[in-house]
Amino acid sequence: MGKQKLELAEVNSLPYEEFIKRFGGAVEHGALVAGAVWSRRPFTSIDKLCAAFMDFLDKLPIEGKEGVIRLYPDLAGHLAHSGSLTAESTQEHKAAGLDTLTSEERATMAELNERYKTKFGFPFVICARENKKEAIINGLEVRIGNHASAEVETGLGEVKKICDLRLRDIVTDSTPKL
Amino acid sequence: MGKQKLELAEVNSLPYEEFIKRFGGAVEHGALVAGAVWSRRPFTSIDKLCAAFMDFLDKLPIEGKEGVIRLYPDLAGHLAHSGSLTAESTQEHKAAGLDTLTSEERATMAELNERYKTKFGFPFVICARENKKEAIINGLEVRIGNHASAEVETGLGEVKKICDLRLRDIVTDSTPKL
Repeated sequence: MGKQKLELAEVNSLPYEEFIKRFGGAVEHGALVAGAVWSRRPFTSIDKLCAAFMDFLDKLPIEGKEGVIRLYPDLAGHLAHSGSLTAESTQEHKAAGLDTLTSEERATMAELNERYKTKFGFPFVICARENKKEAIINGLEVRIGNHASAEVETGLGEVKKICDLRLRDIVTDSTPKL
Repeated sequence: MGKQKLELAEVNSLPYEEFIKRFGGAVEHGALVAGAVWSRRPFTSIDKLCAAFMDFLDKLPIEGKEGVIRLYPDLAGHLAHSGSLTAESTQEHKAAGLDTLTSEERATMAELNERYKTKFGFPFVICARENKKEAIINGLEVRIGNHASAEVETGLGEVKKICDLRLRDIVTDSTPKL
């Protein structure tokens, strides 16, 4: 996002400090995840790099998965109002049209978000780049009826889609030049 | 640190967003850890709260433990020079006398730190509040000879000591008032 993309060979040669700086936002506020994934290098393809992130998330105990989901901001919530979202989230929310909600849509989404959080103890996460605002509101209405254990996996699945797209924003998908 | 301490009853009533704000630094840059531990509330004592953090760290896969250790700054490294340490680390390093290193001590520590990082792929972590600078330099010299698998557990043990002390800085150790 904004910075020049890295070749895979460059990724594989990054010291952990630099790796965490570049990839610590692939999972929102996820420095720990990037720090863990560094152990899996070298990555022989961008798919393998993505898979290492997904694999780490999948192996977390349930409260760890919930902890990951809790790192994400409410969609169109007060962080967006106050301009405090991460650069990644700002761009993604914009892509979904969340910056052009009518006041009625915003009120509906805020109310659904609160009900969702009260029920599950974590925020509603959805890959905003793959959904427009109407689909997001519909998703909230449907997923609020899920059982808690299923919803952790659904939320984590969205975290993984977002992570995959962010990784592909950072790394060039080509054969290493080394 | 600086803020008023919380009673246990207050801790138990925090929404996850507030819990992550207050406890996200108990493990350095550890918002994910705090977010996960929130699932374990209510905590019936400060010891149980501490145990929940320790238990989460212990259950991480080995690369997750390495990822946690990689969130810590080098002792007396360039982050300290540039004033970019977290508030918690600044105070702890000062308690160990790391702000009064002679230039010779600083050079020795920097060299040992680099050798340690090259060997293990993570930084040397030690509970600075429980060790003075001489003990820290000695610890570096000894631990650099360890096997990598043992050193992950040793480093994580220090992370846990630091975490325990930081938690007791945040929460009052008394019977809940509710």
